[in-house]
Amino acid sequence: MSDLPDREACAKLDAADPLRRLRDAFTLPADVIYLDGNSLGPLPKTVRARLAHVLESEWGEGLIRSWNDADWINLPRRVGDRIAALIGARPGEVIAADSTSINLFKLLAAALQLRPGRRVIVSERGNFPTDLYVAQGAIELLGGRHELRLVDAPALAGAIDADTAVLLLTHIDFKSGRMHDLAALTRAAHASGALALWDLAHSAGAVPVDLNGAGADLAVGCGYKYLNGGPGAPAFLYVRRDLQDAVRPALFGWMGHARPFEFAAPYEPATGIVRQLVGTPAILSLSALDAALELWQDVDIAAVRAKSIALTELFVRLVEARCAGFGISLASPRDAVMRGSQVSFRHEEAYAVMQALIARGVIGDFRAPDLMRFGFAPLYVRHVDVFDAALALHAVLASRAWDRPQFRARAAVT
Amino acid sequence: MSDLPDREACAKLDAADPLRRLRDAFTLPADVIYLDGNSLGPLPKTVRARLAHVLESEWGEGLIRSWNDADWINLPRRVGDRIAALIGARPGEVIAADSTSINLFKLLAAALQLRPGRRVIVSERGNFPTDLYVAQGAIELLGGRHELRLVDAPALAGAIDADTAVLLLTHIDFKSGRMHDLAALTRAAHASGALALWDLAHSAGAVPVDLNGAGADLAVGCGYKYLNGGPGAPAFLYVRRDLQDAVRPALFGWMGHARPFEFAAPYEPATGIVRQLVGTPAILSLSALDAALELWQDVDIAAVRAKSIALTELFVRLVEARCAGFGISLASPRDAVMRGSQVSFRHEEAYAVMQALIARGVIGDFRAPDLMRFGFAPLYVRHVDVFDAALALHAVLASRAWDRPQFRARAAVT
Repeated sequence: MSDLPDREACAKLDAADPLRRLRDAFTLPADVIYLDGNSLGPLPKTVRARLAHVLESEWGEGLIRSWNDADWINLPRRVGDRIAALIGARPGEVIAADSTSINLFKLLAAALQLRPGRRVIVSERGNFPTDLYVAQGAIELLGGRHELRLVDAPALAGAIDADTAVLLLTHIDFKSGRMHDLAALTRAAHASGALALWDLAHSAGAVPVDLNGAGADLAVGCGYKYLNGGPGAPAFLYVRRDLQDAVRPALFGWMGHARPFEFAAPYEPATGIVRQLVGTPAILSLSALDAALELWQDVDIAAVRAKSIALTELFVRLVEARCAGFGISLASPRDAVMRGSQVSFRHEEAYAVMQALIARGVIGDFRAPDLMRFGFAPLYVRHVDVFDAALALHAVLASRAWDRPQFRARAAVT
Repeated sequence: MSDLPDREACAKLDAADPLRRLRDAFTLPADVIYLDGNSLGPLPKTVRARLAHVLESEWGEGLIRSWNDADWINLPRRVGDRIAALIGARPGEVIAADSTSINLFKLLAAALQLRPGRRVIVSERGNFPTDLYVAQGAIELLGGRHELRLVDAPALAGAIDADTAVLLLTHIDFKSGRMHDLAALTRAAHASGALALWDLAHSAGAVPVDLNGAGADLAVGCGYKYLNGGPGAPAFLYVRRDLQDAVRPALFGWMGHARPFEFAAPYEPATGIVRQLVGTPAILSLSALDAALELWQDVDIAAVRAKSIALTELFVRLVEARCAGFGISLASPRDAVMRGSQVSFRHEEAYAVMQALIARGVIGDFRAPDLMRFGFAPLYVRHVDVFDAALALHAVLASRAWDRPQFRARAAVT
């Protein structure tokens, strides 16, 4: 263990961290090491000020006039443009709206519409279950003419054939943090004439993504994980510019209409990404996401990735060195290139261990049946946090502190 | 005009108003008479306190733990139960989620699923255009097997036949404020074996609604109008209890799953209204709506209706008496029994007249091509406001103040 950094060495790494000023932009409880930003990002200070303004000035004083005066009407597009900059898309290719599930439904229906002769959706057996629910639901709703072909990761490229309409994948696996090669799999889809639809829930704000560079067709993602938009923040969707006007929206609503204020039938979709809007956007939640995204304006995503790799490498090394012999095993790729910004460990009593760890102020989360997940959001997690978290995990395991009824009792939300 | 009340008489009516204490629960700009609560309700003071708590304590301190500790997971149901009390539904029959358009899509698809042999959706030619867009979109998405049969209001009951799956209506017309007989039209639908799906956007919080009493099957509604939940507040949906488990949701997502935290495929819907949830709810916006609904706890909806009728009657009388000869004509039912909580007047220059009125601090809105809408939300609008608004309208018309370029220039949102 002699080559493992001690806490002082970690503090030195933090002092030299080019992203260190960003931690101060968040409200973090004093007694908590927060390693669950992959589930819900913490509160950015910009959000507090923005919501006060939206409440008092825009809603309270401006009332209905704020649709014009505060430009609420274009907020989904403005937020989308901010996100576009983080995922390798151009302005006008991304819009913030609805939930990830609903956006995935819209774009999956779009993909099937763009490949009318093809019958198959290819995805991964271990894909995020909701994404598979959405696919299953879309197939049922559209009359059962399509098939969901689920294979394991290594078989994905080979499973795409001339009958494949779309390759539907989550870029970074929610359990292990394993990252797909987005460009290579997009190429594989295109080689068979299929489209590539990516779920970037665990990617946006966590790792560099280059949708345009990869020629990706469609994508969705989440506003409340690494983008820190707040609980249930609106999600986003991306449609490659040349496909936007070729897709008739799956769900019609006034916000996606070409002339929404004429209140005229029949429906006529707007041009561009805006046609993917449906109903009135949740302005409070969307404003919070917009304010959270301000933090990214001058952030170098390469520096984010470098720090993310440093943090996850350090955690793997520290935990494996300190916690060997306590029934723990790495469930994430050992090679950082293959890994997102999280590390998962397997343990037979993962639920109770995580509860005991949370009781000590180190917050990660549990995924059934036996995974402990730790997210390392480089904007606010420090090397000393990684050091202290590994120490706490060792203490919980060595003392068997987890073996108490209060840590074994399952909460409603696990 | 001698029997018209003067301002002093209006002030006396306000002093005797059993709802008068409620005005104080809202933040209203000092220089504004707000008659647009049918588009966006004003800011309730409860919302300010709640959002500060949600930001600082629930999100900021509690972080991911608040899904359990602040019971975020059940917030859609708790908000739904509050709304249920206002529309004649039981706890467990209403849930808050998504937008009105998306909820309408879900329930229209549900209705078609419940009446598989039937081909027709009956609706009103003048129905809210978005509702017709949603119907048109659903028909296209489901393969074009259904037909949207649009008739004028008097022909509705007669248009329902043995091939009708569902009667899709907005209870209170967005333009004129005309109110349908919800019970009678629901009976007419049932008499032909069809379902009744009601849009309560302009009803909930404005007039008494008795969904259970009418035997209504399905309903949707809006959180940001008379319920004052804030711009783009989450919407709601109602499914009669005995139908809830008979409907397979149109859109699948983790929040509607029977065991969302097992993360297991395939999709299996929860029992009850919860299966109509899809993705993660926008907790900030939903919390604002929840706090706004606290205001209704001790409100007698019969008193709301009585005051609403008094206000709208007064406005019609004052405007018709004062503004005769200025090209204005009533576009709402003259009979209060047939009218919701709004009054619309037609004028050739309605847009410019409304802009000039807004510039004087009387905020209503415009609907193309020639309507001025005035909403009278009994929780905060006073008789003196009605008096002053009628006076201001007369002043704008008599002086032709509206005939200036700045009032004719159309904004992005009209």
